[in-house]
Amino acid sequence: MRDMLGREDAISVAEAQRRMMGHSTLREPEALNLSVDHGYGRILSQDVFSPEDMPGFSRSTVDGYAVKSSDTFGASEGLPAYLTMAGEILMGEEPSFKQRKGTAVKISTGGMLPEGADAVVMLEHSQSVDNSLIEIFRPVGPRENVITAGEDMKKGDLLLKKGSILRPQDIAALAGVGAQSVMVYEKPRVSIISTGDEIVTIESPLRPGQVRDINSFSLAGLIQEEGGVPVKKGILRDVYEEIRRAVQESLDECDMVLITGGSSVGARDMTGEIINSLGSPGVLFHGVALKPGKPTIGAVLKGIPVFGLPGHPAAVVVCFDIFIKPILRVLSGRRIKSWEGRGRVRARLTKNISSTVGREEHIRVSLEEKDGALCALPVLGKSGLIRTLVKADGTIVIPPEARGIEEGAIVDVILF
Amino acid sequence: MRDMLGREDAISVAEAQRRMMGHSTLREPEALNLSVDHGYGRILSQDVFSPEDMPGFSRSTVDGYAVKSSDTFGASEGLPAYLTMAGEILMGEEPSFKQRKGTAVKISTGGMLPEGADAVVMLEHSQSVDNSLIEIFRPVGPRENVITAGEDMKKGDLLLKKGSILRPQDIAALAGVGAQSVMVYEKPRVSIISTGDEIVTIESPLRPGQVRDINSFSLAGLIQEEGGVPVKKGILRDVYEEIRRAVQESLDECDMVLITGGSSVGARDMTGEIINSLGSPGVLFHGVALKPGKPTIGAVLKGIPVFGLPGHPAAVVVCFDIFIKPILRVLSGRRIKSWEGRGRVRARLTKNISSTVGREEHIRVSLEEKDGALCALPVLGKSGLIRTLVKADGTIVIPPEARGIEEGAIVDVILF
Repeated sequence: MRDMLGREDAISVAEAQRRMMGHSTLREPEALNLSVDHGYGRILSQDVFSPEDMPGFSRSTVDGYAVKSSDTFGASEGLPAYLTMAGEILMGEEPSFKQRKGTAVKISTGGMLPEGADAVVMLEHSQSVDNSLIEIFRPVGPRENVITAGEDMKKGDLLLKKGSILRPQDIAALAGVGAQSVMVYEKPRVSIISTGDEIVTIESPLRPGQVRDINSFSLAGLIQEEGGVPVKKGILRDVYEEIRRAVQESLDECDMVLITGGSSVGARDMTGEIINSLGSPGVLFHGVALKPGKPTIGAVLKGIPVFGLPGHPAAVVVCFDIFIKPILRVLSGRRIKSWEGRGRVRARLTKNISSTVGREEHIRVSLEEKDGALCALPVLGKSGLIRTLVKADGTIVIPPEARGIEEGAIVDVILF
Repeated sequence: MRDMLGREDAISVAEAQRRMMGHSTLREPEALNLSVDHGYGRILSQDVFSPEDMPGFSRSTVDGYAVKSSDTFGASEGLPAYLTMAGEILMGEEPSFKQRKGTAVKISTGGMLPEGADAVVMLEHSQSVDNSLIEIFRPVGPRENVITAGEDMKKGDLLLKKGSILRPQDIAALAGVGAQSVMVYEKPRVSIISTGDEIVTIESPLRPGQVRDINSFSLAGLIQEEGGVPVKKGILRDVYEEIRRAVQESLDECDMVLITGGSSVGARDMTGEIINSLGSPGVLFHGVALKPGKPTIGAVLKGIPVFGLPGHPAAVVVCFDIFIKPILRVLSGRRIKSWEGRGRVRARLTKNISSTVGREEHIRVSLEEKDGALCALPVLGKSGLIRTLVKADGTIVIPPEARGIEEGAIVDVILF
């Protein structure tokens, strides 16, 4: 359906997402070899298998005495087992002797068991009678208080999966098996083209009618947050050839292109025309049943996703979350699990919120603790206001079919 | 109370936290001036007030016609208001004329209203009769579809609070008011001293009895995640003078000191002695009712928090979360709100877990979706195993008073 200006009706958020995903060539990113020291937060480009058994030897998990477990069977407080002291194992050293029957060898947490020992008695369950004899008050079973060779990881075990993000503990595991470097994906590059005759740099003095370039700053931060590299192409006048050249350059250099501004109907139409002049399929939608964010343009050129974003700062943040983030995650090679993403909290809504049936509304809320309960206060104000973004701690989403949410309802707040 | 080896009973997690917070000199960190381009994720060292009104002029929030609202009162589809076209406002330009009664001026979203105009009629609610006359079908009230000068921010308004972390939208707001630089706190420096005769670097070939330095890698990642700077002091033998020198150096260079390893009783006792030799109050606790993490040492020297961490990789991660993170946040100048922190999800427990009354247990779980429901699978295995950490997606906490959690219970999983 088209309105009186010949524009297609706004499509649903889900349909817009489907069109973008369907037409983008979401190629696997290039890989590079990186020192594990720099691996934190990067995405693995291949499965990692353990190159060796870990640990390479049987280790004690407690401080105590290495024993043959059979020597302790039946030991109790009333009837201890008596074992002969047969030396001490030094940390980091391979024992130079075998464990003989009827003996105990002093060992620390992490120490290597002598050949022939199969368990460790905790210090607390023993007592020295003299320098050469100790009493054991409790029996130990085979492998008790021991991590056996290869118990943590066997050579060839899958250690980390392709597509997962390297967390601190994953880096530690790589270090543990002696992996000094790791194959990770290149970060996706995202071009930011700011347009609008009214937009000036933050260094420029403002003349009446002018505003500063805000959206390139929020977008750069959001792109970094998702593991991408922002590439700012500067602020361009609403001139067809200039914007077209910037988009064309961006298609050669980057993995995604974001064009902000173009807030007037004329400018928006020009953005659409420029995109369509550069290849197919071109514009896939122009207008989404979403508030804020209605006049968003979604397009694909040479398999590269291209967005025309509305000028409203709040709309840019919402569009990033809905459209750009899921694609950026695919472009970064990350395999997201269903429960990943941003943190959520549940809070009590402090005011009625009404919503228009047929469009998905994203309401910014601030959080506050009142009498120990968490409350969500809608941050009201036009979506062009920046302070609504700064005041907010998160967002609640009202689905298209709802007429709103009543005061007192428990809502899920997606934290920024 | 002291056990048969003369050691104090393990104290509660809460008591251990209280002692550390009570004795540390948690000074406000130093501040530095940073370009807003590099401000993302940094902590503000002072309140930021708006240096000017924003916007500096009244702007349209829609595409349409600037009018005197009184000229549209009573307009309807059946009885439109007729206004004379009186030109167009260009984006970024100050109108060179005043709005006269009975006229309409074409304006785009973001355009500057002429003096005398107080509202904008949306394009959709109007129709051109010819080049000089337009029909208006709906009335607009004063300030409708307009953001008035200073409506977003008044000069002197509090824009951002001291101690808050700069999010993408906060950087955007700073750019919006022309702030090219911003005062933020220096990042806290955290020394990591790895000790243990059995520990070698990840580059070294392993001899029997030796293991690689793992914990300095997980700690470095966790410190970065919390906005700190890890300072690795290398791997030291269990030699009193060497470790003492490294701690002393760290106290001069860093804001916190972490000593890992020293897993044997002797080494742990030596760590405590070294700390006590360097000043007061020295060791505040040695042993916590916590699993994993029991043999943790907490100390303060010259107001600087010092921790002796157990060698178990899982224990290091849990101790970081419980003891180090809260202090690191204070040292970074960040003012945390009650609902901040790591994301949580609710999931159904797939197995009974038993727990010892009197100590807080942290159980690692992996998450899985089954028939659309999220399940938490306990990752079992000795806490010295690294794969328990890598397999896990998060942690559930069993409080000291509980005997465990039953299969099927809904649990809160704190995501890594």
